[in-house]
Amino acid sequence: MDRIEKIVLLGAGNVATHLGAALQENGRRILQVYSRTIGAAEILARKLDTDFTSDLSYVYPGADMYIFSLADNALEDILKAFPLKDVFAVHTSGSLPIEILQEAGLRAGVFYPLQTFSKSIQPDFANIPLCIEATTDNHRQALFELASDISHDVRFIDSQQRETIHIAAVFACNFTNHLFSIAEEILESKDISFDIMHPLIQETIRKAVQQKPSLVQTGPAARKDDKIMQKHLDQLSSLPNYRNLYNFISQSIMQNSKK
Amino acid sequence: MDRIEKIVLLGAGNVATHLGAALQENGRRILQVYSRTIGAAEILARKLDTDFTSDLSYVYPGADMYIFSLADNALEDILKAFPLKDVFAVHTSGSLPIEILQEAGLRAGVFYPLQTFSKSIQPDFANIPLCIEATTDNHRQALFELASDISHDVRFIDSQQRETIHIAAVFACNFTNHLFSIAEEILESKDISFDIMHPLIQETIRKAVQQKPSLVQTGPAARKDDKIMQKHLDQLSSLPNYRNLYNFISQSIMQNSKK
Repeated sequence: MDRIEKIVLLGAGNVATHLGAALQENGRRILQVYSRTIGAAEILARKLDTDFTSDLSYVYPGADMYIFSLADNALEDILKAFPLKDVFAVHTSGSLPIEILQEAGLRAGVFYPLQTFSKSIQPDFANIPLCIEATTDNHRQALFELASDISHDVRFIDSQQRETIHIAAVFACNFTNHLFSIAEEILESKDISFDIMHPLIQETIRKAVQQKPSLVQTGPAARKDDKIMQKHLDQLSSLPNYRNLYNFISQSIMQNSKK
Repeated sequence: MDRIEKIVLLGAGNVATHLGAALQENGRRILQVYSRTIGAAEILARKLDTDFTSDLSYVYPGADMYIFSLADNALEDILKAFPLKDVFAVHTSGSLPIEILQEAGLRAGVFYPLQTFSKSIQPDFANIPLCIEATTDNHRQALFELASDISHDVRFIDSQQRETIHIAAVFACNFTNHLFSIAEEILESKDISFDIMHPLIQETIRKAVQQKPSLVQTGPAARKDDKIMQKHLDQLSSLPNYRNLYNFISQSIMQNSKK
């Protein structure tokens, strides 16, 4: 296929919003925005100065690519009702296989930006790893060219690898944030503001990025300091969930450092 | 007491090394470095262009302050053998109470820099929270002046609060790094380099610092997406430890979002 020029966006959430803007900035034409809620479709369409609909039967044919950027559980329903066949369509999900589009009679691809998006913050797409997948060489080539225009980190990643990346991301992003929340709660129970942790967590991340995290593990569990760990467990007795988590993760660190 | 000018450093590890340099840069005189291993004492003393000893009976009297910057389990032994009494002494430990110095017959203080130090990386002390504690107003005042010369984030923190901070730091720093290690291991099992996670973890930290971590929790557990969680647990069946940890932390997130 030729260069991907004309695009229809299906979805109006954070990913669709930021991706739509990035594509437009790089010279692509967003023909139309579809969303199940007409208000959401309109808001994004106005940002992109284009058309919108909440009726799948009005989705324009003739785009070079249809981007399905919806919640995983919504995608299946939308695909069942999607009237166009044999058009090139990609989804942006970390978890869903490429087959879900093939089974809907589409020429399938995946365009998964590995990043956490917030409505209010404009992401720097140039640095976001774009994990792409397609079923023919032509589509792979076209998708690679498109992706390379908006990011300098484009990778061919198959559906199985993408699921692995998604699991790793849950550990490295979602679970990490939960640990920060626990630290926040523990500190606030003693009237200490979480901001005291900022330099420490920034340095922790800097080290993990500069070197491999497995090489820079520190702390009581890593040096098997039973006395401190016991003291911490005693202190956490009023927070049994966090006490258990402390114990569980410490055991996991000790098992790893045995290797 | 007057301004703290002359300092003896007891310890030659990462904290002693970086703290000694920061004090010297801010016009203080490091009279001497003590370490149990003469080689370590000599290396740091050369960096600071000063004297060194590995014999506690040769530690100079007459310093304005003695900084004990040693591993927690070493400090008790050293204190037992420390010949000077009634001098002003601080330790740099997150876990040990101020009383440990009082019990050794010293005028006690604490000077705890909340940061993770690496031998090879020069930290920016100006941004490191310094948690200080002392037993008299005079010592509090002198310690505050000293600390304020090297950091713009100086806080009076008592021993109980400091222990709480240390526990929070284990969650936010040590445990976080372990989660990164798990992500690294999961990715490498499918030949994917951990560097694909860098933009995601940097953004995760940016959000947690810009807002409160408890307000920006995302992921399958936060939105109670049982289908994805079950898929991830199935995928992790070959790594039972990480499967359990996935389950445990997901439960903890779900309990928190109920609140």
